[in-house]
Amino acid sequence: MTKENRPKARVAKGFRDIAADEIRGTRQMLAKIQEVYEAYGFEPVEQPFIEYTDALGKFLPDQDRPNAGVFSFQDDDEQWLSLRYDLTAPLARYVAENNQKLPTPYRSYRQGWVFRNEKPGPGRFRQFMQFDADTVGSASPVADAEVCMMAADTMEALGIQRGQYVMKFNNRKLLDGLLDSIGLIGEESAGRRLIVLRALDKFDRFGFSGVEKLLGEGREDESGDFTKGAGLPQRAIDSIRRLLIRIDFGGSLESSNEEMLSQFEQLDFAVNETFAAGIKELRAMSELFASAGYGPDRIRFDTTIVRGLEYYTGPVFECELLMETKDEDGRTVRFGSVGGGGRYDDLVARFTGQQVPATGFSIGVSRLYSALKLAGLAQEAATLAPVVVLVMDKDRQGDYWRMVQQLRASGVRAEMYAGTAGMKAQMKYADKRGAPLVVIQGGDEKAKGEVQVKDLRLGSELASNIASREEYASQRLAQFSVAEADLVSAVKKALAQ
Amino acid sequence: MTKENRPKARVAKGFRDIAADEIRGTRQMLAKIQEVYEAYGFEPVEQPFIEYTDALGKFLPDQDRPNAGVFSFQDDDEQWLSLRYDLTAPLARYVAENNQKLPTPYRSYRQGWVFRNEKPGPGRFRQFMQFDADTVGSASPVADAEVCMMAADTMEALGIQRGQYVMKFNNRKLLDGLLDSIGLIGEESAGRRLIVLRALDKFDRFGFSGVEKLLGEGREDESGDFTKGAGLPQRAIDSIRRLLIRIDFGGSLESSNEEMLSQFEQLDFAVNETFAAGIKELRAMSELFASAGYGPDRIRFDTTIVRGLEYYTGPVFECELLMETKDEDGRTVRFGSVGGGGRYDDLVARFTGQQVPATGFSIGVSRLYSALKLAGLAQEAATLAPVVVLVMDKDRQGDYWRMVQQLRASGVRAEMYAGTAGMKAQMKYADKRGAPLVVIQGGDEKAKGEVQVKDLRLGSELASNIASREEYASQRLAQFSVAEADLVSAVKKALAQ
Repeated sequence: MTKENRPKARVAKGFRDIAADEIRGTRQMLAKIQEVYEAYGFEPVEQPFIEYTDALGKFLPDQDRPNAGVFSFQDDDEQWLSLRYDLTAPLARYVAENNQKLPTPYRSYRQGWVFRNEKPGPGRFRQFMQFDADTVGSASPVADAEVCMMAADTMEALGIQRGQYVMKFNNRKLLDGLLDSIGLIGEESAGRRLIVLRALDKFDRFGFSGVEKLLGEGREDESGDFTKGAGLPQRAIDSIRRLLIRIDFGGSLESSNEEMLSQFEQLDFAVNETFAAGIKELRAMSELFASAGYGPDRIRFDTTIVRGLEYYTGPVFECELLMETKDEDGRTVRFGSVGGGGRYDDLVARFTGQQVPATGFSIGVSRLYSALKLAGLAQEAATLAPVVVLVMDKDRQGDYWRMVQQLRASGVRAEMYAGTAGMKAQMKYADKRGAPLVVIQGGDEKAKGEVQVKDLRLGSELASNIASREEYASQRLAQFSVAEADLVSAVKKALAQ
Repeated sequence: MTKENRPKARVAKGFRDIAADEIRGTRQMLAKIQEVYEAYGFEPVEQPFIEYTDALGKFLPDQDRPNAGVFSFQDDDEQWLSLRYDLTAPLARYVAENNQKLPTPYRSYRQGWVFRNEKPGPGRFRQFMQFDADTVGSASPVADAEVCMMAADTMEALGIQRGQYVMKFNNRKLLDGLLDSIGLIGEESAGRRLIVLRALDKFDRFGFSGVEKLLGEGREDESGDFTKGAGLPQRAIDSIRRLLIRIDFGGSLESSNEEMLSQFEQLDFAVNETFAAGIKELRAMSELFASAGYGPDRIRFDTTIVRGLEYYTGPVFECELLMETKDEDGRTVRFGSVGGGGRYDDLVARFTGQQVPATGFSIGVSRLYSALKLAGLAQEAATLAPVVVLVMDKDRQGDYWRMVQQLRASGVRAEMYAGTAGMKAQMKYADKRGAPLVVIQGGDEKAKGEVQVKDLRLGSELASNIASREEYASQRLAQFSVAEADLVSAVKKALAQ
């Protein structure tokens, strides 16, 4: 292959490689989440990465691409296939296909990569991992409440202190009822309702001043891009404002969820059936939270939570981490959302025509891992780099191999140098690997029945503390000899230091 | 949505959903493989699912589709993207892109789904999982040998007895040397060399009589489809026959790998430089196997192993399970290959122009899991279904919730019924879930400060042993009352039975 037609080695735009620390840390985190979900009696199930495009449907927020945020391609029989953009749409397909076989309700969990064909940005990738739990086949607010309590328990199982997270909940029916009452009803208003929904989902980022523009004529961002608004009349915007701003009705951290709900009901909203149904479900959830001992410090009613996905029909929830971090401009901000979910009663009915009520919660795995790392709760450092046995004499690789075998058999991570380079390059290799110790046996040591153990950690520590090379050489603390037979115990002793 | 435009709920062709048992069993299996690879000092690294098409290259065997077995699609900037078809091509891209940062040699492992745009068949899916380990940056046969020994250790860590698996190894340079010697050299013979390679890869399935046809004019299968052969002259086919049929030179299970190699060298092959280099590498590997204590019962020289992937350049290996199973026609056959690999010295050079020697081994995860299940070694049954607390009184869900909380806190998997149905449907639910016990507290029990525990396992056991309903009802062994305060200890005691 000539230089001209060689491909360039580059990761695809919006994708990334994942290094050892993050893989190990994520693995431990996933195992803890899984432990909580298993204890709750949820069962694992997995759907494939690829589904028929029509089976997934189109429910993504912020579709800035012609193919609506999804990677799609045609099969050889001309049917369109798509990479899943979340884990909920494939689950709905699965339940619709297998409903007869499944228990009712069907409580399941799954973890996996999803794909969005979107503009990548800083920290925003086109492949990311979600961890979902869902209850399908129960219309009871108990199912929604259970998912919220399980999410709160999960945060604590991960070591996040009470007060450092809050699970916020709301109900889409409040907003739906309000939109009904201002005349945004039926198919012809679907587009504007969606604009309202997505405007409200940005409350966290823009505050009400930004949201207000998106509800009205539109909003120009810092780059000058203009987003067209929903064009609501001022009266409607005022109603939405009162729905969102909790401080208006005296909600505070000390109030119980029931108190907040009561205050909320006392306001003179144009209450209709949908709105009332939302309040009733919120009450049922609040009661279970209270009697199960989950106070508003853990799970809190919050009308600003709407969630951007179109398919939610009732309770919605979002898990927010309260620990502080820096935003892109270096300002101190709360870490923010690491997951969310809600009730999606119509997703299965898309296939079957029969409503199968469902609710679920999805964790953004990479975001949650970043949060744990920030909080010093990620355990990626637990794995020690291996002890490296150098190859001093190529004819004696069998001997060196038996050394690593002995070390491994006693639980020590160990490797024999697998390359072809000399002693100097081997030491450099061990150093780059972060090896705590190297084991050396040249001809002289072999003749004496000994091995040398060199402590690289001690070596580099000494090197930084000792003024002269002479002093360093004279100390030789970082290297010692042991009898061949004592190799394993000597290595274990040195590692324990 | 009207009936006419509802999508049909169906999993996409060639894909599948995965149930709880397989997920749990696979998870445990992956953890064990990982433990071995970690002990060897390999480090995890992961590449994304999507790469630029030119970066992946085209190395798949049996390409029966115009897009060469790969799922591909265009990005919005017109660049072609593909779903990875294995984990090796993305690793080569990663190493080419990050070589300066990585230690030499770079020993890594990864596990993940890969995708093939192929005709699906029975047990043949378009999404499957691989678990790979690779050493990049070492030309030493020690690196190849290490991967083979690690694979053998992995099989035993999974509980597969010695004698139930064998890691077979060979070297592509034997075949390459032989093809050189019969004049199949250079670019213009690349197509025919590939046909030879893929014919030999089918030795296991067709035996030499089938392979012989593919080396000559071609082969007609049972369905009447004709596969064009390589068109080699009979003399060349005879040479290949002698390369393949170990029995010709007296190889047997008792012979050491070195003895087999020696016998092999004594044959009057037209030995050239390539062939001799292959023998030399095989010798180096055999010596390390012998001195490290891996006999030919575990790792065995076998000239029939060639591997179908085009990119291998030196040693190749395959892990075969010897336990018996039934094939599609009900015949008893050996389970066969669960993984393979080899040396691919040119994959990184595709990008950089500089050769970076590399070798690796890939486990077919689903196949290996099937084998473990067949051998009774899969541990999917370890997770007990949860205890179900029935909801007898909707106003007392808080009480029931506290019961499941107590059970979980003491390590018992437990759930509160999350649906809206009555007692009969709840019992049916618990039964379908496979719940070992249900916990019941209606108004009467509450008044007495008691709960009922019903043992569903015992119930169904009794039901099958007891002749009459009266006898069953009179025994009532399957149900007992305990004081509320003793719920947890009573449940734990019942579960321990």
